[in-house]
Amino acid sequence: MSENKIPYKIYLSEEEIPKKWYNLRADMMNKPAPLLNPGTGQPMTAEELSGVFCEELVQQELDDTTPYIDIPQEIQDFYKMYRPAPLVRAYCLEKALGTPAKIYYKFEGNNTSGSHKLNSAIAQAYYAKKQGLKGVTTETGAGQWGTALSMACAYLGLDCKVYMVKVSYEQKPFRREVMRTYGADVTPSPSTTTEVGKKILEAHPGTTGSLGCAISEAVEVAVTHPGYRYVLGSVLNQVLLHQSVIGLEAKAALDKYGIKPDMVIGCAGGGSNLGGLIAPFMGEKLRGEADYQIIAVEPASCPSFTRGKFAYDFCDTGMICPLAKMYTLGSSFIPSANHAGGLRFHGMSTTLSQLYHDGYMEARAVEQTAVFEAAEQFARIEGILPAPESSHAIRVAIDEALKCKETGEEKTILFGLTGTGYFDLVAYEQFNNGTMTDYIPSDEDLEAGFAALPKIEA
Amino acid sequence: MSENKIPYKIYLSEEEIPKKWYNLRADMMNKPAPLLNPGTGQPMTAEELSGVFCEELVQQELDDTTPYIDIPQEIQDFYKMYRPAPLVRAYCLEKALGTPAKIYYKFEGNNTSGSHKLNSAIAQAYYAKKQGLKGVTTETGAGQWGTALSMACAYLGLDCKVYMVKVSYEQKPFRREVMRTYGADVTPSPSTTTEVGKKILEAHPGTTGSLGCAISEAVEVAVTHPGYRYVLGSVLNQVLLHQSVIGLEAKAALDKYGIKPDMVIGCAGGGSNLGGLIAPFMGEKLRGEADYQIIAVEPASCPSFTRGKFAYDFCDTGMICPLAKMYTLGSSFIPSANHAGGLRFHGMSTTLSQLYHDGYMEARAVEQTAVFEAAEQFARIEGILPAPESSHAIRVAIDEALKCKETGEEKTILFGLTGTGYFDLVAYEQFNNGTMTDYIPSDEDLEAGFAALPKIEA
Repeated sequence: MSENKIPYKIYLSEEEIPKKWYNLRADMMNKPAPLLNPGTGQPMTAEELSGVFCEELVQQELDDTTPYIDIPQEIQDFYKMYRPAPLVRAYCLEKALGTPAKIYYKFEGNNTSGSHKLNSAIAQAYYAKKQGLKGVTTETGAGQWGTALSMACAYLGLDCKVYMVKVSYEQKPFRREVMRTYGADVTPSPSTTTEVGKKILEAHPGTTGSLGCAISEAVEVAVTHPGYRYVLGSVLNQVLLHQSVIGLEAKAALDKYGIKPDMVIGCAGGGSNLGGLIAPFMGEKLRGEADYQIIAVEPASCPSFTRGKFAYDFCDTGMICPLAKMYTLGSSFIPSANHAGGLRFHGMSTTLSQLYHDGYMEARAVEQTAVFEAAEQFARIEGILPAPESSHAIRVAIDEALKCKETGEEKTILFGLTGTGYFDLVAYEQFNNGTMTDYIPSDEDLEAGFAALPKIEA
Repeated sequence: MSENKIPYKIYLSEEEIPKKWYNLRADMMNKPAPLLNPGTGQPMTAEELSGVFCEELVQQELDDTTPYIDIPQEIQDFYKMYRPAPLVRAYCLEKALGTPAKIYYKFEGNNTSGSHKLNSAIAQAYYAKKQGLKGVTTETGAGQWGTALSMACAYLGLDCKVYMVKVSYEQKPFRREVMRTYGADVTPSPSTTTEVGKKILEAHPGTTGSLGCAISEAVEVAVTHPGYRYVLGSVLNQVLLHQSVIGLEAKAALDKYGIKPDMVIGCAGGGSNLGGLIAPFMGEKLRGEADYQIIAVEPASCPSFTRGKFAYDFCDTGMICPLAKMYTLGSSFIPSANHAGGLRFHGMSTTLSQLYHDGYMEARAVEQTAVFEAAEQFARIEGILPAPESSHAIRVAIDEALKCKETGEEKTILFGLTGTGYFDLVAYEQFNNGTMTDYIPSDEDLEAGFAALPKIEA
């Protein structure tokens, strides 16, 4: 099809929404390392995991051989409420940059949770409901995951308890109200409602919280309340599995027009969006069918890939969760208070960590004022106010498009626009007022985190 | 096509986005009464209006005979950034209500302005740019119009000065930041930056402002600053013309599946959404080609249609604008402070007023706690957090669907979901906390406004 026929937005039809998730691990030669029981140092068994997670999700977590997994009809029906998500050709941005590059973005923000998180939230809530549970517990940082889970739980009639990182709870009171509108209980973390929360508050009075703290609290509540399980919005293999719907849809839309991206760019916090977006492209790369440049973008203030260690570590600050082998800054790492938005987890998906370690993808760290410059430029030109998280990917996409302008290369760039910034206006206000600052942790800061890594040989 | 083939969301293709706006007035036997010069009592001439409005918009304002007007290519291109808007079949809501009714809504909230207002903002900004102007001034209430105009001006490189009703400015600081991110100047109204603002503040110290005040200020700035014109987000004929894209798209999507709605429901403040949504349906009704029940829904706290007078009145509190014949509560009417969200204008589109007067549509007034109950129910079931304004239409759509449940009638209901409530969380918080109150003005309150109506025979 000739290029000028490509519309601004490529929508699949409802029937074209993927009916199976793609399990990237099935095509990996070097599988991600297993989760370990912190007590025994042995791989977590399905039985051990099922005290924390729903049974079907445990299966998905451990399954590294089945390439495609059916999406249950009920989840497909829910997807139809907000999917397919558009694949957008950024004609206006290309023109404004004067680049010969062709820029596409997969926009996951057109739903009330404001991000891609809903793709996994509905799946996890569905399996909890199917298991006959009463409710789920979780943590949320920037609040996108908590909102998504609240929506999914309201839809299915499940109870939902959310521990929200205190700094976000304070910066984003409206996120709390969205969750409350959807019927969730929202508690700022660390809190005195859990033993681990009390312990963290004692050790770090006045802490603004971290995802690691909030995870510890949510897990404690899940394992001490009958009929509850814990669910997590990122990092886990099961989450990347559910999020593969992003990449599958994006690839199907591109394939319709015979477009092959040269590079795929996504922001990376715990890896849910990135892992989902790149899944089918990485699959082709792993199987030797095609090559793509794949770029993870992370905040310079929380640089797990670019400055972390590839090692076994706790996923939570309270050290009650299983150990995961991943790029990590240490489970005690907390981004500096001036860090806005999400992407604040100390570790990274084990799957993406292995792929990065094996050289299948690269990573870049960017500073937040540069990220907000890109966000504002994008908002004015493309008409969408992006989430700070998504704007990390925008920053690198713009940088790459400008490189093409210099070299004259007509590269095709695909990036993930994970969500909208409607609840991030405190950060935008700082940027508008010129009071936003950058922060890069010193080597000494990071060494402290590395020194506390558990001593595991694996 | 068989009914079970109707998808959750009907999207037109980009080529199917309307290329002409529909001018409802062309099919009206009784045309809306002309705007009058408040000094002479004579109809405003194009020359007089062009001191305030752009020239091409003056032509559109006065043209009550041309049924279709071409949408300029540049505006069509901008529309492609966020249109077509989906027509959604509310399968989940129907099921939850247990109604035999079929419910559809046209969702205009999937853009950063959060509402349908962008449809007219880009048109008005385009004509201003085309005329070589430097910038535009406007007022905004709930902030949707100001945001939309800021986006359109950023896209076209026009200066944008927004006077924002003070109570909204304070309740919605984040709206201000979105507008600033798009480069607009935002001033809370009434302000001391204008003569009329100073006068209003002197007469009503401590006022929380009104759309009427803010209009006066914005008009004063436009007429006293060379290279500026005033633009308005509702009420005017030109705005209804631009907003006809809503109804034209909705009807095209319904026609694809052979669906004819029995009733069309829209919220009404100044009439921009309602006038746009109903345009092609009302056109058929006026031409005697089909019949539809058309329902305007307004707040009981600002009941222009249901309790106002059909009379000539000022559009602004400062009484510097032309007089319009409309359903009005008097230009000094200000909704009580507990009124959340928009739909706070004292008057109503002259076109819709004439149609209502002639019996082509009906009107209902609803109280805000009932509106927020519908909003919460809708959010939980349909996965979209609606704007308070839109929720007025949801309230009546649910009420009508429940009537069908009683009677067993399988009516087809179409309503306008004009936008999202992401910036209305202060109001949602009041509702969640049980502190939201209702207010219905007394007859005495209204009489005071009516007594101040200008004495015009027309």
